[in-house]
Amino acid sequence: MTRDVLAAHRAFYDAIETGDLDLMASLWVDDPGVTCVHPAAPPLHGTETVLRSWAVLMAQIEYIQFFLTDIEITTFPVGADQPSSALVVCTENILSDGETSESFTGGAAICSSLLVRDGRRWRFWSRHASPVAIPDPGEEGS
Amino acid sequence: MTRDVLAAHRAFYDAIETGDLDLMASLWVDDPGVTCVHPAAPPLHGTETVLRSWAVLMAQIEYIQFFLTDIEITTFPVGADQPSSALVVCTENILSDGETSESFTGGAAICSSLLVRDGRRWRFWSRHASPVAIPDPGEEGS
Repeated sequence: MTRDVLAAHRAFYDAIETGDLDLMASLWVDDPGVTCVHPAAPPLHGTETVLRSWAVLMAQIEYIQFFLTDIEITTFPVGADQPSSALVVCTENILSDGETSESFTGGAAICSSLLVRDGRRWRFWSRHASPVAIPDPGEEGS
Repeated sequence: MTRDVLAAHRAFYDAIETGDLDLMASLWVDDPGVTCVHPAAPPLHGTETVLRSWAVLMAQIEYIQFFLTDIEITTFPVGADQPSSALVVCTENILSDGETSESFTGGAAICSSLLVRDGRRWRFWSRHASPVAIPDPGEEGS
């Protein structure tokens, strides 16, 4: 079950990295209640609005790659065999060409994603991303 | 059901405003998997660690008041009579004495909170807060 959640979560980043808006659209629940919080921005509500924001971001990105670390997954109800939702919290370490939207400046972000289950399929209901200050490893030795 | 979620969500802000750490502790699930993301900070995991961070923040706050706007609630499974979890996304408009932690600078934050149900009781499983740029209304007329 956790593997299916992780697969959907990874596909989300594959969609951004490859600029695949169809893949991105397939990963979100189609509902006016879905929510996406881009870094430093107010929440977007509704699948159409959320997907439009990703289309704009993807159009601005020449090259981007995500290295995910500290991935924590919880399924709800906690301990249930057939969970209905899953929370994924992770750190996005971002490598880009520097021409991306201001949303991706800073090099790292913390992201909380809530996915819901439909059979074996997991899709995004909400995502909240925010920049985080990551210490420069080079500064430790100086 | 939504009323019970809202009551727990509001109690969380009451706890901060009144510096009531016992109330704050009563509002979180006691589990190593709980998560709290303070603005610009990496995620904290585990109830003990999360509550310690609130104790530190409360100790730094002389006066603070939250005005919540744009509150959106979804319960999961969507449409179920007996949901197991609830997502609350809102804007925190913050009034403080200016001596608070850097976590509260900026005057407004977007917050996504995930609560889980135990009977009629709802408690926090995760919270992700991040600063947001709110336009100054005074600038519109100038």
